[in-house]
Amino acid sequence: MVGGLSVTVRSLVAKDRSGMDILLSRIKEFDGEDGKVANELLDIYLTQTTQDYEFLVAETQNGHVIGFICYGHTPLTEGTYDLYWIAVDPDFAGRGVGQQLLAEMEKLIRVAAGRLVVIETSSSPLYTSARNFYPKNGYHLAETISDFYRPGEDRLTYVKVL
Amino acid sequence: MVGGLSVTVRSLVAKDRSGMDILLSRIKEFDGEDGKVANELLDIYLTQTTQDYEFLVAETQNGHVIGFICYGHTPLTEGTYDLYWIAVDPDFAGRGVGQQLLAEMEKLIRVAAGRLVVIETSSSPLYTSARNFYPKNGYHLAETISDFYRPGEDRLTYVKVL
Repeated sequence: MVGGLSVTVRSLVAKDRSGMDILLSRIKEFDGEDGKVANELLDIYLTQTTQDYEFLVAETQNGHVIGFICYGHTPLTEGTYDLYWIAVDPDFAGRGVGQQLLAEMEKLIRVAAGRLVVIETSSSPLYTSARNFYPKNGYHLAETISDFYRPGEDRLTYVKVL
Repeated sequence: MVGGLSVTVRSLVAKDRSGMDILLSRIKEFDGEDGKVANELLDIYLTQTTQDYEFLVAETQNGHVIGFICYGHTPLTEGTYDLYWIAVDPDFAGRGVGQQLLAEMEKLIRVAAGRLVVIETSSSPLYTSARNFYPKNGYHLAETISDFYRPGEDRLTYVKVL
């Protein structure tokens, strides 16, 4: 129960596909290339058995999917995981849904003997709230690569030791 | 012509598969998980048309493949490329084959309007020569993430602005 909002975090299943479409369409970070990639990964996740990543969703008591997190084991590492995306419906921002998604991911990573979570994000103003969110949840900025995404848009890497 | 050795750098083609098998078996960095991943990427490269990465090989006048480089456009970026692997047969080490592979990759990336090359490598003693090689060729160490690959083995990220 967060901010009067009762949310369940669970694995994504096939019936969530339409809810995810609506959710992605409501989040401006997924307007462009990220949205295309997210949709591809969703399709692979729901149709193939071997997976390099997991999707968890946050669902309200009414059955609405209002947030998701996508993460996976980092190839060629022992116990390191990448958080690829975390996103919450803007109408439910600031009510702890992101924290709940993150906490569930960390719990599952710990269960899988994971020890390090890495998040790459952009210096773009579009991701200002993300850059505030991660440090509040125990992630620290480990690295910056200038102009990584495009000229003027850096890559910031946050890490958390579990 | 490098160190008395005349080497041609060109795209990998199907007939190089057996030469690549021999080459990979001779390089200790490809003993484990890296070798498996390299073989998977080689198979995909040689059998599928859409590719996210390129393989170039260094071939002697006798037709022996003695080195290769694998690189690709970094998803969600404009003009950034990842160098995934560069490796030379230990019998031909120190004779400029690596430089030649790197220079050809950089030329092709520039032609494709690329502007930044990123290399992730490990702090393991196995990669000492790689960590010496990159700075000599204009790459600088941009980032380090402690214990990224496993406890005690860090990830080092080198970048070069083209």
